[in-house]
Amino acid sequence: MVHEPCELGQLQIGYIQPVNDLSTPFTLADQVIVALRKVIGQKSAVLHEPTFSGNEWLYLKECLDSTFVSSVGKFVDRFETDLAVFTGAKHVVAVVNGTAALHIALKLAGVNSGDEVLIPALTFVATANAVTYCGATPHFVDSDENTLGVDAVKLRDYLEHHSKQRAGQCINRTTGKIIRALVPMHTFGHSVDLDEVISIAYDFNLALVEDAAESLGSYYHGRHTGTFGLMGTLSFNGNKTITTGGGGAILTDDPELARHAKHLTTTAKLPHAWEYRHDEIGYNYRMPNINAALGCAQLEQLPAMLKAKKELFQRYQAAFATVSGIRLVEEPAQCQSNYWLQTLVLDSNNADQRDILLQATNDAGIMTRPAWILMHELAPFRECPRMDLAGAESLVQRLINIPSSSTLLQAVS
Amino acid sequence: MVHEPCELGQLQIGYIQPVNDLSTPFTLADQVIVALRKVIGQKSAVLHEPTFSGNEWLYLKECLDSTFVSSVGKFVDRFETDLAVFTGAKHVVAVVNGTAALHIALKLAGVNSGDEVLIPALTFVATANAVTYCGATPHFVDSDENTLGVDAVKLRDYLEHHSKQRAGQCINRTTGKIIRALVPMHTFGHSVDLDEVISIAYDFNLALVEDAAESLGSYYHGRHTGTFGLMGTLSFNGNKTITTGGGGAILTDDPELARHAKHLTTTAKLPHAWEYRHDEIGYNYRMPNINAALGCAQLEQLPAMLKAKKELFQRYQAAFATVSGIRLVEEPAQCQSNYWLQTLVLDSNNADQRDILLQATNDAGIMTRPAWILMHELAPFRECPRMDLAGAESLVQRLINIPSSSTLLQAVS
Repeated sequence: MVHEPCELGQLQIGYIQPVNDLSTPFTLADQVIVALRKVIGQKSAVLHEPTFSGNEWLYLKECLDSTFVSSVGKFVDRFETDLAVFTGAKHVVAVVNGTAALHIALKLAGVNSGDEVLIPALTFVATANAVTYCGATPHFVDSDENTLGVDAVKLRDYLEHHSKQRAGQCINRTTGKIIRALVPMHTFGHSVDLDEVISIAYDFNLALVEDAAESLGSYYHGRHTGTFGLMGTLSFNGNKTITTGGGGAILTDDPELARHAKHLTTTAKLPHAWEYRHDEIGYNYRMPNINAALGCAQLEQLPAMLKAKKELFQRYQAAFATVSGIRLVEEPAQCQSNYWLQTLVLDSNNADQRDILLQATNDAGIMTRPAWILMHELAPFRECPRMDLAGAESLVQRLINIPSSSTLLQAVS
Repeated sequence: MVHEPCELGQLQIGYIQPVNDLSTPFTLADQVIVALRKVIGQKSAVLHEPTFSGNEWLYLKECLDSTFVSSVGKFVDRFETDLAVFTGAKHVVAVVNGTAALHIALKLAGVNSGDEVLIPALTFVATANAVTYCGATPHFVDSDENTLGVDAVKLRDYLEHHSKQRAGQCINRTTGKIIRALVPMHTFGHSVDLDEVISIAYDFNLALVEDAAESLGSYYHGRHTGTFGLMGTLSFNGNKTITTGGGGAILTDDPELARHAKHLTTTAKLPHAWEYRHDEIGYNYRMPNINAALGCAQLEQLPAMLKAKKELFQRYQAAFATVSGIRLVEEPAQCQSNYWLQTLVLDSNNADQRDILLQATNDAGIMTRPAWILMHELAPFRECPRMDLAGAESLVQRLINIPSSSTLLQAVS
């Protein structure tokens, strides 16, 4: 799941409405604004903005001075190595953005024209788009109230009833097409129930590709998200925990997949001093060195950012402890979340409050945002196969992201 | 035609072999090295390297300080405006690289799955790849000895014999498929014979998309290349005349095509304060603000770079005036070339000298390179339709690019 196209987090909202007089009866919107103000103070706040407080300038200058700003240069190699160390993935291939990472990972997972790929309906559109770039069709899966990601219990039951195994392949009983892969997305940085998801992938012969675009710095059973599947993908868009301007990465423990990913993302050119021989259809998806330079500096700051984001969560937790009718999303069991986007979920009987809350908070200079429109409700994906999506449909009516920048508390204090 | 993947120009070659003793008989390779040394001096030289002598650092710092490094930011808007002013195109859409520009331009030109698209066999692989991204098939065209681009006379004759018109569409008589578009590429910065190419596109109902990846700063009849077709595409890879690290642009005079190109390259999201509604399959192809910041500074330097490259050509022209059996490529009639890559073409009877020259010059620390392997000789494109390609096949055996950086003379003096 990637969020490159629209840095809403960086829309500047310049004015602040005063909180209601405490003598008037408190609406839920009033209570939410008071709780938010307890944490972020009286200033306006955007959803998520990057911070460049480390070696960013130094490395960019070093990159310019070297004249190696493009496809060749030491920062790309270093960024890949640093990411491998941080995530524990054996191999990392840096690419131009998270969408490109997902496209290549799906291709290398064997997704072919005519296949289906299971993805959550509750995701950013890039997950679905990447499937279509392979000529395949997204097949939408419901989401779990707790993890906000793939509902593993429902998915297993669905596949038991709606798919069959033939020659080691999972076949959609209705369409007759091969369901080739499963792409769980770790929503807002919270890991899906990976134990169960891995078990489903195994039992139903599905290639597992983790969309970890939102979960750099998130762990499941102490292991980094994106390193459980055949491959995982990251995003470093401007709205992410760390940014390279635009960027992404493919994680894998398989040396041959890593080699092939690097080959495909660099136009499939065979090495030669001067000959331009390309042995398959390739892509121009490599990360430029200048973006990697930014990434190296950002990655150095990541531990401090994660600490700050966890502290922000704890401050929100305290502030919302007394607000009833709404809950702050906590990291699921067995998970350590990066808390990329802090999230409120309204109780079911308060779903009609979502738009009121969105309006009131944004009017008050506190940027908030609902989840994405569910994929099966978008024009290009209306006809795609899907399971019952009651969980995702309910969540999307009740979910609100609130200001989440790692610098938010610094700005307050 | 784009050259993002492999900045051979930046491979460092650190040693220099002495020129042969003048008392020994001069081979052609010896003569070429002597001529090259007259211009570039005794130092080693790469094929093409960027230079950052203007406001690059200032703008990068301004970009970082603003925290707007990604999809939103003033440098993208400014780069698009500055490019429009420079090229005379009414609309410019900055994108992530030249391949992406070509992909979207072809889509918007109506290239559909199953179509064929006429492209030169003598081009970088991105031209052919972009066609396949649309689900279409490249159909290879021969090249002209003089312009190094589409041989318009041969192409007209070929289409007269091998295509037919049906309901306003050009049909390949052999395959029965629609030939939807024609993509001339302005090789090494030299414009194709646009008058004749435009006339062919008109007469045969072909959408004209100019691959101007190599020809920023090149003009035909005083008008900038890339502004004659329905759309044109540029590249700002690290090996190009100016660079954004990785980047490209779509040029068009049609406001609706420009709007649609911007929409498709930014995930086809409809404008809304917080809603994520995408009305078609889109792409994550926008240029990040930090890359555009670099581009704005580079574009300011472009006139000086073009002047330096023209001077380099003139110095090579003088140096090679007395070398027989080989010619230095000059801008074709009616054209003003950017001289992106300076090019030598061996006489037909000297074709067997190409590899000897490549080896000798590279051994001498002077980086040279042949043209790309012709597209129809690459594994993924062997079965694609093609006309007789004798011109391109002959050229590719005789063509050598020589050091072309705009700073080469500065470095010598």
